[in-house]
Amino acid sequence: MKYQVAIIGGGPAGYTAAETAGKAGLSVVLFEKRNLGGVCLNEGCIPTKTLLYSAKTYDNACHASKYAVSVSEVSFDLSKIIARKQKVVRKLVLGVKGKLTAGNVTIVTGEASVIDKNHVLCGDETYECDNLLLCTGSETFIPPIPGVDTVPYWTHRDALDNKELPKSLAIIGGGVIGMEFASFFNSLGVEVTVIEMLDEILGGMDKELSAMLRAEYAKRGIKFMLDTKVVALSEVASGNGDTQQIQVNYENAEGAGCVIAERLLMSVGRRPVTKGFGLENLNLDKTTRGNIQVDGQMQTSVPGVYACGDLTGFSLLAHTAVREAEVAVHAVLGKKDCMSYRAIPGVVYTNPEIAGVGDTEEALQRKGIPYRAVKLPMAYSGRFVAENEGINGMCKLLLAEDNTVLGAHVLGNPASEIITLAGMAVELKLTASEWKKMVFPHPTVGEIFKEAL
Amino acid sequence: MKYQVAIIGGGPAGYTAAETAGKAGLSVVLFEKRNLGGVCLNEGCIPTKTLLYSAKTYDNACHASKYAVSVSEVSFDLSKIIARKQKVVRKLVLGVKGKLTAGNVTIVTGEASVIDKNHVLCGDETYECDNLLLCTGSETFIPPIPGVDTVPYWTHRDALDNKELPKSLAIIGGGVIGMEFASFFNSLGVEVTVIEMLDEILGGMDKELSAMLRAEYAKRGIKFMLDTKVVALSEVASGNGDTQQIQVNYENAEGAGCVIAERLLMSVGRRPVTKGFGLENLNLDKTTRGNIQVDGQMQTSVPGVYACGDLTGFSLLAHTAVREAEVAVHAVLGKKDCMSYRAIPGVVYTNPEIAGVGDTEEALQRKGIPYRAVKLPMAYSGRFVAENEGINGMCKLLLAEDNTVLGAHVLGNPASEIITLAGMAVELKLTASEWKKMVFPHPTVGEIFKEAL
Repeated sequence: MKYQVAIIGGGPAGYTAAETAGKAGLSVVLFEKRNLGGVCLNEGCIPTKTLLYSAKTYDNACHASKYAVSVSEVSFDLSKIIARKQKVVRKLVLGVKGKLTAGNVTIVTGEASVIDKNHVLCGDETYECDNLLLCTGSETFIPPIPGVDTVPYWTHRDALDNKELPKSLAIIGGGVIGMEFASFFNSLGVEVTVIEMLDEILGGMDKELSAMLRAEYAKRGIKFMLDTKVVALSEVASGNGDTQQIQVNYENAEGAGCVIAERLLMSVGRRPVTKGFGLENLNLDKTTRGNIQVDGQMQTSVPGVYACGDLTGFSLLAHTAVREAEVAVHAVLGKKDCMSYRAIPGVVYTNPEIAGVGDTEEALQRKGIPYRAVKLPMAYSGRFVAENEGINGMCKLLLAEDNTVLGAHVLGNPASEIITLAGMAVELKLTASEWKKMVFPHPTVGEIFKEAL
Repeated sequence: MKYQVAIIGGGPAGYTAAETAGKAGLSVVLFEKRNLGGVCLNEGCIPTKTLLYSAKTYDNACHASKYAVSVSEVSFDLSKIIARKQKVVRKLVLGVKGKLTAGNVTIVTGEASVIDKNHVLCGDETYECDNLLLCTGSETFIPPIPGVDTVPYWTHRDALDNKELPKSLAIIGGGVIGMEFASFFNSLGVEVTVIEMLDEILGGMDKELSAMLRAEYAKRGIKFMLDTKVVALSEVASGNGDTQQIQVNYENAEGAGCVIAERLLMSVGRRPVTKGFGLENLNLDKTTRGNIQVDGQMQTSVPGVYACGDLTGFSLLAHTAVREAEVAVHAVLGKKDCMSYRAIPGVVYTNPEIAGVGDTEEALQRKGIPYRAVKLPMAYSGRFVAENEGINGMCKLLLAEDNTVLGAHVLGNPASEIITLAGMAVELKLTASEWKKMVFPHPTVGEIFKEAL
């Protein structure tokens, strides 16, 4: 069988590429060894948001009195929360499948292996293709901490399906995944400790806002250990000897110590999946960091072979993957397009949410680009005040010397939704006064940008 | 005393003009006879959103089980809801005052009257000015229905401060104000009937989405009477004769009938305030519809006299007023700027929200502009599915023949916040493919636009 496009991996990069190519009339085959939707849909973005929304509903019910609503006896049912998550995932996976079917995409379930740039093997079948898109995604990185093989630990996948709340949870890695689970389990009453090697949680996000978020969660009972390196893991018997607990030994400026918790979540990061699908048969050029080298059209050093999504190691975000996939398919179609990393939003779905787009202050300083920061408490938005009793937040805009918008960072709900406004401003290189001329509906939280401009 | 800018009215137009002019170093005097913030802040946008958020909190607690959260005995305290509303308003009024003070604006409390384009009288004092900005806003229009003077009725102002829930409420006028109060009182258990003269609620919004919203509220118990004219109002004794009720006599295609309710809310519309401040002394040109004629810089036919906000009768929305005020002050400052009405968002804060920007299908058909409508259920957004169990919604994009975005309409939360994205696309005249190149963070509800493009 011969196809114009063969795609390995059915996550956001793969299914977007398949849908885009199929809609454009190309013959497409997509190989996926697990479930359509990839990590994002099945065990990442979507399931976490479903769990987090149940936690938010629980939090809101517990604090309804702030808005003059009385509620007695609030409780949750974790197994039902997880069952609903599974239902949501199933529905969305079916949606992806439907879109691909509508685009006449041939979906092959199985482990695909690249023979050469024009041939892919899956099962006993060899598929011929004119163009090959590699969209194999990323996997959880498990750091080689002494003892890691001797203790039970969760990755995000286990944490999502765990139906029994532990009394305590140690989280190694305070990045996005770590913090979203910290938020979830904290809401449900678990004693959470976050251990982070860097000097702030959420590396890559605005540092000042990340520190504000950390302070808020510290108030709610999460224990944070920054600048702290985990040096050993072991199992110990609990106080009464009935159950085993996990001991996390660490070192920091104050010396050595340990955290003991019922469960352990590993969330130090993810890395591209480069093995197990015959990548070595393509002899692609690599970047100095070891990732696959691609050009502005996502084409690798071998013409007709493209790499999209986490595999490229650029940002490991579903929305980057989606856009990269569009660009790659446009290249196949001969449509002019180019990938831009100027305005990739980053969002953390804690409560409150934190989001940013464009450069951070830290990045601008590193690059030596002069900038002006405008900071405004979220209380400058009337709607924020109306809907966030007793909650603070901040909006920070970073402007170039010519007043072009370089970056925007927001702590406060719904940062995830309004950051896209700033993303458009950054991508289109609007100046502050150009952006301010837009009419922002009143009252909205998004108006905070107009206020800050 | 002489000022470079005198402003009559301290609502969104007036306070924005004052702040902008003050920041730019102009000497400014602002006259306000009631409270800074105008109708919007004191008895409109902000207080309604505060009440509606309490109602949403109540609704969410009642339906928490959809997200596997159990809650027993949910109740609300209306007087506390109103007390919180007042606290929020006070806080924001103080915020406006603070911004004006920081901009060295002289605030004069009292009824101002224009003597001529360079002189304003307030109390015993005459103020001289180089430029005069008229920002007097609008007031509730009470239609001359027979009997209207003989029955007690609420305007939005009374409805906001009412501390005793009626058993039943008749609302004359199913526009934005009528529907927001209908939503609020329906949530709190009041029997609501909405009587609308036109063939659909929310005139000016997308008709298909408005009908979907109406169907949803009909399911929740609101009774709608469309194409129905109110012909008489009277008071009648209730069943047991203890209290008086209001009888609303109507006529429609099915004949004549009446609605009897404990309370009546009048929300047929608002009209510009043109009397009581010496407007007649300026002899300004009027439009054919009787509004004050202004140019693209909001200047009236008399040089140095500007009109901004509801007074111009353009859209009667706070955010239009804000932008008009900026444009007027820029004209005073000699800064190039021009008012654009291309992308004024309209938002209704029902639950779910409905919002639109740019043209509606109805408007395009009226103007004879060819277009293509792309409609997508909100369930195409993974986040919408995760956070809206059992709730439907729709996104509709209207594209020109050259694929420029002409309009966007959304039913589903948070339509109010994401509509601004479409507003930017419409204002900047982006084509579908230009807009689709933006990276929308995943998973967000705003991604629905990218899906639809």
